[in-house]
Amino acid sequence: MTQNIYDNAGFFAGYSQLRRSVDGLDGAPEWPTLRSLLPDFDGKRVVDLGCGFGWFCRFAREAGAQDVLGLDVSANMLARARETTSDNVILYRQADLESLDLPTGAFDLAYSSLTLHYLKNLGALFATVHHALVPGGHFVFSAEHPLYTEPGPDYLDEGPRTSDWLAEGVVKQHRTLATYLNLLIGAGFAIDRVEEWGASREQIAAHPEWKIDHRRPTFLLVSATREG
Amino acid sequence: MTQNIYDNAGFFAGYSQLRRSVDGLDGAPEWPTLRSLLPDFDGKRVVDLGCGFGWFCRFAREAGAQDVLGLDVSANMLARARETTSDNVILYRQADLESLDLPTGAFDLAYSSLTLHYLKNLGALFATVHHALVPGGHFVFSAEHPLYTEPGPDYLDEGPRTSDWLAEGVVKQHRTLATYLNLLIGAGFAIDRVEEWGASREQIAAHPEWKIDHRRPTFLLVSATREG
Repeated sequence: MTQNIYDNAGFFAGYSQLRRSVDGLDGAPEWPTLRSLLPDFDGKRVVDLGCGFGWFCRFAREAGAQDVLGLDVSANMLARARETTSDNVILYRQADLESLDLPTGAFDLAYSSLTLHYLKNLGALFATVHHALVPGGHFVFSAEHPLYTEPGPDYLDEGPRTSDWLAEGVVKQHRTLATYLNLLIGAGFAIDRVEEWGASREQIAAHPEWKIDHRRPTFLLVSATREG
Repeated sequence: MTQNIYDNAGFFAGYSQLRRSVDGLDGAPEWPTLRSLLPDFDGKRVVDLGCGFGWFCRFAREAGAQDVLGLDVSANMLARARETTSDNVILYRQADLESLDLPTGAFDLAYSSLTLHYLKNLGALFATVHHALVPGGHFVFSAEHPLYTEPGPDYLDEGPRTSDWLAEGVVKQHRTLATYLNLLIGAGFAIDRVEEWGASREQIAAHPEWKIDHRRPTFLLVSATREG
């Protein structure tokens, strides 16, 4: 099982105070770009892989989704998600994405925000998502950009990286951008759009608390379609 | 017109002494990976965008291609290519890839090695390549990797970068990996494979003359297919 850092008390307390935790999607600077990659939600069946506090699940529901399943490994986050959701079309379930099982052709859209870089076996998850989508279904995700996980000279050396963000010893899996894309293609997805998102110069100037002094990308955003 | 650095006498003299100029494809460390992205050549009509000394054109011909067109902006390089080619199935033609015109559906494979990073208007070239290929035709290219053109903190700021490699003031166009892929997708290509090629630790140890002390990628290799 992947490290479940969100159930570490110190990490959870720190994470809960981030703007994206307090203000939801509008508190996430990459959200407008990620939103632009998403299809129409009307009548769609949606699964959120790493749903956290449920902000996206509630957004999808308000945008017209017919069924929404939010999955997360963290009991802490699911408890908060359930507390703040009053809509029984949204179902939250605890699941380890490293060993996920989903029914065949059960979803029109799979979504994941800033979760995939924690997973060791991404190829297996992509295969699971592929068979869980209908043909023509969409898979839209964000992940920490490889240049953020590994900004140094070792970009091509894939594997775990340990950082001290909100807690000590947070483990992320570094893989190259090419690996993300080739795993998707290998699982049967067509790549529709790739975004290397970084704060604009205006955002950097307006948010000194981000402590960002570069124009390297922070997040990788991808939209893909299940073929055939 | 793009800077034609290959017709600069000093640059051309230096370039002519590189191992990839003397030994051809086998002198290029990325060639085995690029080769693995290429389709079968038998009976194929091939265009090489930036053919240089014609090494790939001759390879394609020997591998069974039926027609081979080599295009380059450099008169110096085309003269050398013609001198070393004794096969009238291969045609060499001077062309500026910034304003290229090609006949519709005339090729099964378009190839380009380490040329695209010199071009300002890549979207126009991709559109030209798309209409010049038959549906299902392949486009395989290498380019300088964006992290090699721009290894510093300004990765997301696209535009010209000037370096002093073999001659002073060599201008390359920096664009992100996402931009390469989105331009291809926008032109109607499906992405088949993306490789971020960098020398292995073994190659770095065996070639101190490369003066490489990092595992960041040097070249971007992409294979794509013309859809529908």
